[in-house]
Amino acid sequence: MVVAANRVERTEARGTIDTILAVTERDMARVNELILSMAGSRVELIPEIANHLISSGGKRLRPMLTIASALAHGYGEGDAQVKLAASVEFMHTATLLHDDVVDESDLRRGKSTARTIWGNQASVLVGDYLLGQAFKMMVDVGSLTALSILSDASAIIAEGEVWQLAAAKRMTTSEADYLAVVDAKTAALFAAAAEVGPVIAGKGEAERAAMRSYGRSLGISFQLIDDVLDYGGIAADLGKNTGDDFREGKITLPVILAYQAGDEEEKAFWRAAMEEGENGDEALARARSLIERHATLEATIERARDYGAQAFEAASSLPASPARDALLDVVEFCISRIR
Amino acid sequence: MVVAANRVERTEARGTIDTILAVTERDMARVNELILSMAGSRVELIPEIANHLISSGGKRLRPMLTIASALAHGYGEGDAQVKLAASVEFMHTATLLHDDVVDESDLRRGKSTARTIWGNQASVLVGDYLLGQAFKMMVDVGSLTALSILSDASAIIAEGEVWQLAAAKRMTTSEADYLAVVDAKTAALFAAAAEVGPVIAGKGEAERAAMRSYGRSLGISFQLIDDVLDYGGIAADLGKNTGDDFREGKITLPVILAYQAGDEEEKAFWRAAMEEGENGDEALARARSLIERHATLEATIERARDYGAQAFEAASSLPASPARDALLDVVEFCISRIR
Repeated sequence: MVVAANRVERTEARGTIDTILAVTERDMARVNELILSMAGSRVELIPEIANHLISSGGKRLRPMLTIASALAHGYGEGDAQVKLAASVEFMHTATLLHDDVVDESDLRRGKSTARTIWGNQASVLVGDYLLGQAFKMMVDVGSLTALSILSDASAIIAEGEVWQLAAAKRMTTSEADYLAVVDAKTAALFAAAAEVGPVIAGKGEAERAAMRSYGRSLGISFQLIDDVLDYGGIAADLGKNTGDDFREGKITLPVILAYQAGDEEEKAFWRAAMEEGENGDEALARARSLIERHATLEATIERARDYGAQAFEAASSLPASPARDALLDVVEFCISRIR
Repeated sequence: MVVAANRVERTEARGTIDTILAVTERDMARVNELILSMAGSRVELIPEIANHLISSGGKRLRPMLTIASALAHGYGEGDAQVKLAASVEFMHTATLLHDDVVDESDLRRGKSTARTIWGNQASVLVGDYLLGQAFKMMVDVGSLTALSILSDASAIIAEGEVWQLAAAKRMTTSEADYLAVVDAKTAALFAAAAEVGPVIAGKGEAERAAMRSYGRSLGISFQLIDDVLDYGGIAADLGKNTGDDFREGKITLPVILAYQAGDEEEKAFWRAAMEEGENGDEALARARSLIERHATLEATIERARDYGAQAFEAASSLPASPARDALLDVVEFCISRIR
C-alpha cells in the first residue's frame, strides 16, 4: 500500500496537526492579521458577526493548506499565499454563515451560531460581505488562474448545497449521490485551497492536478470522519453535540449504509426518522444501535482511509521538504481524530 | 441648468427606454442566451428558481448600461461586454433573492417571490450559486480591472445591506445616512455596470470616472423615484403594491423628510409606525396624508432630478453616438416613470 511505503521513508511525527502548524506559523500570523482587517467595516455589525465565527476556535485547516502547498512548491516570498489563504477562509466562513441559516442550526463548535444571536438576516448578509471581500483579495493577487480555480469552487459549493437541500430528506440517496454532495460541498474548497499553491509558484498542470487531487481526497476523508464523529465522538472533543446530524435529518454515509443493510422494518424506521422527522432521543438510540449492528461507522472509516491514502499518494510526489511532510501528516491527523 | 443646455443639442426622443433597447438589442440577445445557459445546472432547482426571477419581467437596465457604455466607448466586437453584462445581471438577481429573504417579502414585480414558493433556504443558496457564476463569467473576460470594479461593488452592496438592517428601523436615520445606504445598495452596481464599459474598450481613468459618476447618479435617481412610486405610483405600473415600503417598515426619503418636517405628534406617529410596526391600512392612510401635507414626494423628486442632471452631465462628455443618446435618454426615462 502506497501509504505504508511512503511512511517508511519518513521519520516525522504522524497523525498530528503540529507539523503543518509549525510550517505555516509565520505566514498564518499574517493571514490572521489580514482576516481581521478584511472583516472590518464601518458597519459594526459586520466585524462583530465575522469575529464571532473567526475567533470560534476553528482549526483554519483550509488556509493552512494553501500556505503549505505554496511552500511545498517553493513559493515563500511575496504575499499572494497570504491573500489567497485569507480568501479561502472567508469563503469557508461565508459558507458556514449561510449553512447555519439553511440548516437552522443553533450550535457550531459548542457555541451559539451567529443566526441565533444576530438573526438569519444578518447571517445571510454578512456572509455575502465576506464573499465579496474574499473576491477582492483574490483580485488583488492578480492571478486569473487562481481566480478561476476559486470562483469555480464557489459555484460548485453552492450547487452542492442546493442539491443536498433538494435530496437531503430522501432515504433513497445512494452512496454515490452522497459522495457527489461531499465532493461539491466540502472537497471542492479543500481542492482549490491546495491547487492555488503551485499556481502562484508558477508550476504547471501536473503539479496543479496533484494538489487538486490531494485536496479533494483529503476533503472527502475529512468529511467522512466528521460524519463518523457525529455518531461516535465525544461532544467536548469536536465542539459539537453528537447526534446533531441525526436530529437535523442530515443523511450521511453511516446512515445510508445502515439503511441499505437493513431489513424492511429497519428501512421503515430510517424513513420515519430522516424523512418524517421522528428523530427524538429514543430514535437516536435506535439509530445508534442499528449503525452498530451493521458496523457502518467502521465501513465509513474504511472509505475515509481509502481517500486518505489517495491524498497521501498525491502529495508524496512532491520533493521532500517540511511543507510536504506537513501536507502528509494532515492526512493522518484528519483520520486519527477517531479514537 | 446643464440638462436643459444639453437637451437643446439633441433631436432624439426623451424619457424613453426605447433608445437603449434599440442600441443594445443585438448584444442583449446574446446576454439573455448566456444568462439562461449560466443559470443552468444538473441540479434542477437552480434553473427553476433562477428563471422565475430572470423571466419575471425586469427591465434588465443594468446589463443594458454595460452594453451601451461599452458601445459608447467604441467596444463593439468580442464578447467581453456580453459576459460582463450577464455578470452584472446575476449579481443583481442574487441580491434580489437574498433581499427577499432578509425583508421577508412575498411579492416582487407583482409575482410571488422565490422564497414564498421554494423557501428561504433555496433562495439563499441559489443566490450564492448565481454569485459564483457571475464571478466565473468575469474571470472568463480576463480583465483584472473589471474584476476589481465588480468585486468591490459586491462587497459594498452587502455592506450597505447590513447597514440598512442595523439602521433600518430607526426614525433618527438622516437624509445623508439614507443616501449613503442607497449609494451602496443600488448605486454601486449601476456605477460598476457603467464603468466596465470604458475598461474593456481600453480607455483610461477619465472615461472610467465619468461612467462611474454617470452610473452612480443614475442609480440614486432611480432609487429615489422608486421610493416615490411606492407612495404614489399605480400598482400595475410598477408590478409592486404601493405602500409596500411602509408596511415592511422601510424608511425611505419621503418618510425621513416628513418626519423631519413634522411636529411632535407626527414624529410620534412615524416612530410607532416604523419602529413599532403599527403599520396597518389606517396608518398607511395617515402616512400618505402627512407625506402630502409636507410635500415630501415632490422634494424627493427634486433630489432625483438633481442626481439625474449629474448623470446627464457625466454622459454628455461622450462623443456623439446612438449609444451616448441611449445613456442620456435612460436618465430621463428613470425620472419620467413619475406621471
